[in-house]
Amino acid sequence: MRVLTLNVGSATVKFAAFDGAARALSGTIQRAELRAAAAGTEHREPFAHADPVGALLKWLADRGHLAGVAAVAHRVVHGGDRFTAPVLATPDVLAALDALVPFAPLHQPQNVAGARAASAALPDVPQVLCFDTAFHATMPRAERAFGLPREYFDRGVRRYGFHGLAFQSVAEALREAAPHVAGGRVLMCHLGSGASLCALRNGVSVATTMGLTPLDGLLMSTRAGALDPGAVLYLLREANGNPDSVEQLLAHYCGLLGASGISGDMRDLLASPAPEAAEAVELFCYRVAREAGAMIAAMEGLDAVAFSGGIGENAPAIRARVCEKLAWLGVALDPVANAAGAPVLSAPNSRVLVLRAPADEERVLAAATRAVLKRD
Amino acid sequence: MRVLTLNVGSATVKFAAFDGAARALSGTIQRAELRAAAAGTEHREPFAHADPVGALLKWLADRGHLAGVAAVAHRVVHGGDRFTAPVLATPDVLAALDALVPFAPLHQPQNVAGARAASAALPDVPQVLCFDTAFHATMPRAERAFGLPREYFDRGVRRYGFHGLAFQSVAEALREAAPHVAGGRVLMCHLGSGASLCALRNGVSVATTMGLTPLDGLLMSTRAGALDPGAVLYLLREANGNPDSVEQLLAHYCGLLGASGISGDMRDLLASPAPEAAEAVELFCYRVAREAGAMIAAMEGLDAVAFSGGIGENAPAIRARVCEKLAWLGVALDPVANAAGAPVLSAPNSRVLVLRAPADEERVLAAATRAVLKRD
Repeated sequence: MRVLTLNVGSATVKFAAFDGAARALSGTIQRAELRAAAAGTEHREPFAHADPVGALLKWLADRGHLAGVAAVAHRVVHGGDRFTAPVLATPDVLAALDALVPFAPLHQPQNVAGARAASAALPDVPQVLCFDTAFHATMPRAERAFGLPREYFDRGVRRYGFHGLAFQSVAEALREAAPHVAGGRVLMCHLGSGASLCALRNGVSVATTMGLTPLDGLLMSTRAGALDPGAVLYLLREANGNPDSVEQLLAHYCGLLGASGISGDMRDLLASPAPEAAEAVELFCYRVAREAGAMIAAMEGLDAVAFSGGIGENAPAIRARVCEKLAWLGVALDPVANAAGAPVLSAPNSRVLVLRAPADEERVLAAATRAVLKRD
Repeated sequence: MRVLTLNVGSATVKFAAFDGAARALSGTIQRAELRAAAAGTEHREPFAHADPVGALLKWLADRGHLAGVAAVAHRVVHGGDRFTAPVLATPDVLAALDALVPFAPLHQPQNVAGARAASAALPDVPQVLCFDTAFHATMPRAERAFGLPREYFDRGVRRYGFHGLAFQSVAEALREAAPHVAGGRVLMCHLGSGASLCALRNGVSVATTMGLTPLDGLLMSTRAGALDPGAVLYLLREANGNPDSVEQLLAHYCGLLGASGISGDMRDLLASPAPEAAEAVELFCYRVAREAGAMIAAMEGLDAVAFSGGIGENAPAIRARVCEKLAWLGVALDPVANAAGAPVLSAPNSRVLVLRAPADEERVLAAATRAVLKRD
């Protein structure tokens, strides 16, 4: 059975095709360029379309990649309190996801539009929706609740958390690679242009750093992360009460970019001699360690740390700085393994196992879709 | 030398008079009632005035308590980035404090008005201003910075922290009671109707849970504490972009009150059989433990915990629940000492010392004022 996966973000579309568990194709559309890899060959071409999903499906059909596609899997950022497992897309389900746009205004519209475009282009193919929030449905109520009046919780204004497909893929990889700690207390650090932490205890999420929306928690590439609610109100008064302009600021001009004034790309900052770049890098690492403390308190201890995401997988300097700040917990890296990006990064005598565990959302999407359709 | 201390909050005025280090008088005005204790006798009377500070000064003068007053000390919630030590009130200083009202709109106006009223009533007496933010001026830049563009930091939009006079009094008491840990890593839990945590390392604040304003961090009596900035934006859109109504909600209708729907008073909730009360208590304790993890990560370990504030000093059940959640760090209470509210609450074999350390802001105000005036 061939499954096509679509992961439509605010700036990027990722796609892949799986025949059973085997990846036959993978690619991205980013900065008006399509890149695809299949059967060992790479392909690039300019790709700018008003309807990128529709255009991508046509591109895939023209090259024969849709032959035998039995389902399309979609990553959807927000499932709210109703969708805590993958579901088949129906008009009713898609309408319910539209209603969640206020909780993720920068991501949800693209996700739902992508599912609608694929339904229109492939009307006879089941569309399966997989939610980034679903992995955290296991969190206890005290982690899911804000300090708001309880009627807000009842109408869905809660902490949900995100990056669930990434965390699930890391948790599954961990069960294979380190079964003796996968059932313990694992700090998952998913550090990319978006970034969040997850406390995994006995194999399930018990805490995470993102909340109702993907704006909360860690410092990110261009997102501010956690912010005193009084500071948000201050920014709002400066913006004459316009939430849209504050949202644009917090989503696109803050984080590494805002703190450095140089770049939102960690590679640029690590290469820069500017003190502002060093300050932004320190702010990023400090916030990871500080929030890690909150996660570790939530799961009452630490047996393992897993790094994923563009930064987590590829920036040994950042892993080293974060782990140094966690040394009091018995975290000790092996510098050679860290520099090489080995699967096991910790020193043999480290009390805490440290792993490099690349996230693979596409694999999770395809597997979840096979499970929903009860087919291999 | 007699020093009068004035601590003008949003709902309460606390006052005291010190002759040298000796407390000669102390009292409060709360819910239109004045209570005062001096020379072993207590006094109560109805007390409702449009200008409570002016009326209080007249009341004190009429009873001879201002005879020989050489200075008045004021607690001021926000000193911004300019005031990191006590200062003499001058028109220039008071104008600079007016400019900080947007950072603490619910507290700063009363504080500054109190200093002006006392200056008018006692024009020949020096007025000394002591700042709740000043104790945290030692925090590293990564703790003080939000993830905002760096020009915001430069113009004072930073994390300052509050409860500084309370934390200072606890830190001083700790140096007397437990000098062997006071220079280590101490988690100070100031839990009252307002509540925050402070990480004290080598005797100075290195992290705290409140930010630019006193709205951030822990769940409080009626304040929500930390909130996803995206959730604040969501609330703002619901309120048609009115920051004032969201601020009122977050300051007065959230926290224990909002989460329980019953009361903002921890005593009421502990006495209530309602499941909603139990949920609010669990949310409070969970948030203390979760944020404690962040503080402990910031100071890279834990040697002692100190409880202060109305709840911290008087609610053994809450101390027990918080300490149970910190048991993984080697925190173990002595149940008998905890029930009795003894100065040392931890069991003899506890790896972490746990203390009950009542905060005394008035003592800190008076001592700081004697120091500013270089007199005893």
